[in-house]
Amino acid sequence: YPEGDPMWGYFRAVSGQDGEIDAEELQRCLTQAGINGNYTPFSLETCRIMIAMLDRDHTGKMGFNEFKELWGVLSAWKQNFCTFDQDRSGTVEPHELNQAIFAMGYRLSPQTLNSIVKRYSKSGRIYFDDYVACCVKLRALTDLFRRRDGMQQGFVNFIYDDFLQCTMAI
Amino acid sequence: YPEGDPMWGYFRAVSGQDGEIDAEELQRCLTQAGINGNYTPFSLETCRIMIAMLDRDHTGKMGFNEFKELWGVLSAWKQNFCTFDQDRSGTVEPHELNQAIFAMGYRLSPQTLNSIVKRYSKSGRIYFDDYVACCVKLRALTDLFRRRDGMQQGFVNFIYDDFLQCTMAI
Ligand SMILES: [Ca+2]
Ligand SMILES: [Ca+2]
Ligand SMILES: [Ca+2]
Repeated sequence: YPEGDPMWGYFRAVSGQDGEIDAEELQRCLTQAGINGNYTPFSLETCRIMIAMLDRDHTGKMGFNEFKELWGVLSAWKQNFCTFDQDRSGTVEPHELNQAIFAMGYRLSPQTLNSIVKRYSKSGRIYFDDYVACCVKLRALTDLFRRRDGMQQGFVNFIYDDFLQCTMAI
Repeated sequence: YPEGDPMWGYFRAVSGQDGEIDAEELQRCLTQAGINGNYTPFSLETCRIMIAMLDRDHTGKMGFNEFKELWGVLSAWKQNFCTFDQDRSGTVEPHELNQAIFAMGYRLSPQTLNSIVKRYSKSGRIYFDDYVACCVKLRALTDLFRRRDGMQQGFVNFIYDDFLQCTMAI
């Protein structure tokens, strides 16, 4: 057991016997660990897509190593969000989300960026929970796409069942 | 104005000047109209994907005609859910979700069904809100796929940006 690891206590407190956590346990774990700081706690929905992002064996649960991997990306996204949210209102503006997406290395068309902003904003602003949900989905969908685009041709041939398997869980 | 239409009152009460409703207004509208009955009200998340399903002009909003179309499918899904939830516990079991998906005409592999169940269940059961979210996503993603599979070959070539535009908003 990784007893010296500062995250182990948080994980162990919710994981129980099986050493894995589901979406509800992840929500509790992240809230107790306080990673969202003064921002709104993560919704169950966002926790579900966090698990789906890392759940390579399709169990719907997350082990400690995946949890640590998640923690790393969450910290980076939070840092990022704070940089844009200078007035600490808890929200960033649509053009700042676009800048953040660009800064993460994604190159998307204006139409796609526009759809994303519509989807993840409330009354024209983006809250931390939705910002993270957006980052998780972008990363997971890009990973799925790249893994299938072995030749890096920029397009992928999806059969219907595989398309749904990729996209329904995220 | 479709004054004689029984749904017009519900819609008009929340739509305001622009005659369109966003996800938060849709949530209020559906709750007031009572379509969920004794089941849990629709989450904002589910309302967002309902809008994305029908939002062909990418405004993030829904007009009255789209609202009526949504109402129709929601009624059918609720009917369906009630049929399985015979003890009125507010939840259906995983194998019942699989049966419902089959009954709607979808033919999915066991792995895909398994991913879907993992994603939309809480403690091994499926609540009405998640059931509807699942139905909306299945329908929207299938529509997107079929529209691109003009020759009905069963596969689609997606470029990266189009893949994200399709899947990020749902
Ligand atoms: Ca701000
Ligand atoms: Ca619209
Ligand atoms: Ca039941």
